[in-house]
Amino acid sequence: MEHSDCPLCRDTGGVSVATRPHFRVIRAEEADFPAFYRVVWTAHVAEFSDLSASDRARCMAAVVAVEQVLRQELAPTKINLAALGNVVPHLHWHVIARFDWDSHFPNPVWGERRRAVEGPAAARLRLPLDLLDAKVRSAIDALADD
Amino acid sequence: MEHSDCPLCRDTGGVSVATRPHFRVIRAEEADFPAFYRVVWTAHVAEFSDLSASDRARCMAAVVAVEQVLRQELAPTKINLAALGNVVPHLHWHVIARFDWDSHFPNPVWGERRRAVEGPAAARLRLPLDLLDAKVRSAIDALADD
Repeated sequence: MEHSDCPLCRDTGGVSVATRPHFRVIRAEEADFPAFYRVVWTAHVAEFSDLSASDRARCMAAVVAVEQVLRQELAPTKINLAALGNVVPHLHWHVIARFDWDSHFPNPVWGERRRAVEGPAAARLRLPLDLLDAKVRSAIDALADD
Repeated sequence: MEHSDCPLCRDTGGVSVATRPHFRVIRAEEADFPAFYRVVWTAHVAEFSDLSASDRARCMAAVVAVEQVLRQELAPTKINLAALGNVVPHLHWHVIARFDWDSHFPNPVWGERRRAVEGPAAARLRLPLDLLDAKVRSAIDALADD
């Protein structure tokens, strides 16, 4: 199931936050969107519907766990969820805390920039990224079976 | 739970394809992306994690049902799934069939256009949109409980 030419099979793809047998959670290092996590499925499958129903539930439980931490810890304006994979067709869910002050809001992170943001965006979050990572890790570790 | 100033509480929001008690499926009328459906949750909630676990399962079953029809009927290059809601914070999932020939591929539909596409994009699909809508409707109608 591993593909040597797939960057998500080959590399972690970001800051490693939590690892489970079926998936891992990484933090993308996007300066404009500091609270940007990805749930990366371990097996090289392209589409969400390639997963069995139980794996889909397992996957979305992880997505929701990350979303809940971001909401509780950061009180973002909005959470953005997406599974695109046009460039890297290996199933990964983007879980992004968006703020009305961020560089692109209300545009998607892939859309046009709307404003300049002074100073590092990460400094505007309620807690430092290493503590946020730890909260995400705890939430993922607390998930039932895998 | 209805908000008079919410466009997805007030209006259908696209071509009505299927209606169930907890959600509806509409087709967005996007000329560049003809096979673009949305699963719109009926209750006015902003975030996916506002739903109970059983409602999340119900919601994703609908998303997956649409995805499976698009894959079977259109053989797209990729499916894109997203719940953003920065502009309209009423839970809705985008389910979009993407093709390597489409105007933006591999960019997200919200990103930069990559090419001009001659003629109506819908004419390049394997089947007309009304037949595709009917297939989506059947798949949604076949879902278990709601």
